[in-house]
Amino acid sequence: MEKRNLLVGQSGGPTAVINSSLYGVVSVGLSNPEIGKVYGMLNGVEGFLEDRYFDFEQEMPAEDLEKLKTTPGAFLGSCRFKLPGSIEDAMFPTLFEKFEKLNIGYVVYIGGNDSMDTVSKLSRYGEKIGSDIKIMGVPKTVDNDLVRTDHTPGFGSAAKYVATTVREITIDANVYETRSVTIVEIMGRHAGWLTAASVLARKHVGDNPLLIYLPEVPFEKSKFLLQIDKAFEKNTNVIVCISEGIQDAEGTFICEYATEVGTDSFGHKQLAGAGKYLENLVKDQLGVKVRSVELNVSQRCSATLISATDQKEAAGAGEFAVYSMLEGETGKMVSFVRGEEGEYQITYGLEDVNLICNQEKEMPLEWITDDGSNISDEFLGYVKPIVAGNVEIPRDEDGLPCFVYRK
Amino acid sequence: MEKRNLLVGQSGGPTAVINSSLYGVVSVGLSNPEIGKVYGMLNGVEGFLEDRYFDFEQEMPAEDLEKLKTTPGAFLGSCRFKLPGSIEDAMFPTLFEKFEKLNIGYVVYIGGNDSMDTVSKLSRYGEKIGSDIKIMGVPKTVDNDLVRTDHTPGFGSAAKYVATTVREITIDANVYETRSVTIVEIMGRHAGWLTAASVLARKHVGDNPLLIYLPEVPFEKSKFLLQIDKAFEKNTNVIVCISEGIQDAEGTFICEYATEVGTDSFGHKQLAGAGKYLENLVKDQLGVKVRSVELNVSQRCSATLISATDQKEAAGAGEFAVYSMLEGETGKMVSFVRGEEGEYQITYGLEDVNLICNQEKEMPLEWITDDGSNISDEFLGYVKPIVAGNVEIPRDEDGLPCFVYRK
Repeated sequence: MEKRNLLVGQSGGPTAVINSSLYGVVSVGLSNPEIGKVYGMLNGVEGFLEDRYFDFEQEMPAEDLEKLKTTPGAFLGSCRFKLPGSIEDAMFPTLFEKFEKLNIGYVVYIGGNDSMDTVSKLSRYGEKIGSDIKIMGVPKTVDNDLVRTDHTPGFGSAAKYVATTVREITIDANVYETRSVTIVEIMGRHAGWLTAASVLARKHVGDNPLLIYLPEVPFEKSKFLLQIDKAFEKNTNVIVCISEGIQDAEGTFICEYATEVGTDSFGHKQLAGAGKYLENLVKDQLGVKVRSVELNVSQRCSATLISATDQKEAAGAGEFAVYSMLEGETGKMVSFVRGEEGEYQITYGLEDVNLICNQEKEMPLEWITDDGSNISDEFLGYVKPIVAGNVEIPRDEDGLPCFVYRK
Repeated sequence: MEKRNLLVGQSGGPTAVINSSLYGVVSVGLSNPEIGKVYGMLNGVEGFLEDRYFDFEQEMPAEDLEKLKTTPGAFLGSCRFKLPGSIEDAMFPTLFEKFEKLNIGYVVYIGGNDSMDTVSKLSRYGEKIGSDIKIMGVPKTVDNDLVRTDHTPGFGSAAKYVATTVREITIDANVYETRSVTIVEIMGRHAGWLTAASVLARKHVGDNPLLIYLPEVPFEKSKFLLQIDKAFEKNTNVIVCISEGIQDAEGTFICEYATEVGTDSFGHKQLAGAGKYLENLVKDQLGVKVRSVELNVSQRCSATLISATDQKEAAGAGEFAVYSMLEGETGKMVSFVRGEEGEYQITYGLEDVNLICNQEKEMPLEWITDDGSNISDEFLGYVKPIVAGNVEIPRDEDGLPCFVYRK
């Protein structure tokens, strides 16, 4: 039987380990005797539609492959491109002709739930025309909001960044004797998983961060101010962690409150984050020293804080996707299944991608304390093994992290 | 001769290695036979005035001492407290009585130029009354703006954080094909040293960050927009690094432009940073995707990115301060003197603290290129050895950095 080639793409926002998944896919692809060439879509399906692709065997030196595991960003480039809603659209035959022209037998798409939508549509179109091309999704998102999987690659490293950085911010804020509030704004528009991970920054019960707010629980300004006042009984310096997407009972994002400010000198509505808004609120209402810190993109691209568990599982998910296709699977996403008892153990599973795309998994409400400002111990048991383990990263002669780039 | 005790304090904003200097002071103090007890002022001279101090031998387990070298923040707590302008003030005899009561023979104050003002006043008062108490300053500041020293402890680690993070932000920004500008705001109100260190993020000539702006050169909005336009010829994704303190030819801070916006919903002037202001400017004028990232306090408190050189020199400066006092020196600040030829080598020197306090050392203009948007190669030779070397930090069972705290 003629060998078929493998095509892999990355899509959506990058994470610290999306390239670890790429490593998993490519290393199996290059070494498995049933697979011919290994191609990468440049900038996802959008770039592939313009015939932009990468030949791993030809273009990537073997020593660079290993470095993918410690390179943040998306090595192949990414896109935010949604395939047409109907699989009757002309784009689908165009794509499959391009697949056939490159003798593609296996397609892996690494991404979040928008990317799983791409996997869903491609596999449904493939089924419709009776194509034998296997199509598989590998999850990634720092938000940890994909359904039907214990967690997602990318979350563990982001969580480790958040926990480490909040612990450092706490020690920095503690140097003065005067009362202060530090508001740390963490990624997560609809799901609070990543913000919840800030609980790991605590060294003992009752330590900072003293208050943690997630989008899953309606945010009330007056209650928030009372809770800060109460937190001062525990510590002179209060650290508050909030998700960027915290919202009130009506579903209005707190960051939208800031637009009441009016327009800036360019005639635009000034859109500050929720952290900046609450900074001004606390300053105004409580008259204490306040600072807001937006953790920003470093949450998803810090190489030095990659979780070893996350890296290993991300690579493993990529490998498993390829092996599954070789066994005839298609239209699935690789999932993580946690062993129910004893030491932390993950096995890889397969889930129907149609049941995953365009859905969001929020933090279970029972993992958020009744007053909406703290996280339960059950979450600690869930998250600790996912952030565990450190990774040595290659350094250049200046001691800076040394990444791999497309030429 | 009766043994005299040692008193050490920390003051001003913390750095990643201000506790390394404390380690240097305390470890010599505890082991030298000429020195009795080692006390720490809690929250600097301000806390000491309230008789708040720490007894290292009694209160700090030996295994914790070593951990000071990888603990950010200020272990003893800090203050922003300026001693009275006249040494005729009653506060001076009060302080010296407290020194005598504790049988202090040696005082070390670790801080920036405000702290050197404290060292200056204490030593001048001591001289006036004929006291034999030795008083010495150990420099620290991420801003690197102290005069009469090659560089300052704290700068190297902050510079390493900036360079590493800008390299990661660049790889994150590069994933999409559409034109984008990312503005990274870096600490430095009057001196651009730390922002200049972002040049280390480049992997080759012409790489990002493509534009770097420091407070030393007047910032012109129209020129800035033209330079961004030109930078797009080199890269689709343009990274711009700015000091928080960039200012126009009239000396108005760019962040002050943002106050033109008017008042927020609390009736306060909305003070966004320079990065946020320029984000809106670029969006308005060039119509491209723009993001601004404020690196914030992590610049001065990231343990995982401590520079080994910086850590070693910070501890060495602390040790040298104590040894110098034992040799009779007082009223000085420890300085770094770089060997003029061959491999990087630092020797410690002593400078009259009166010539250091209340002064600022800016980046030499010859290290900034003529168009004001780039840094010269001479600066690279200056900064590279200061950021060099990695430090292993102790980790707890979750893999998070394990710091030492006062009980």
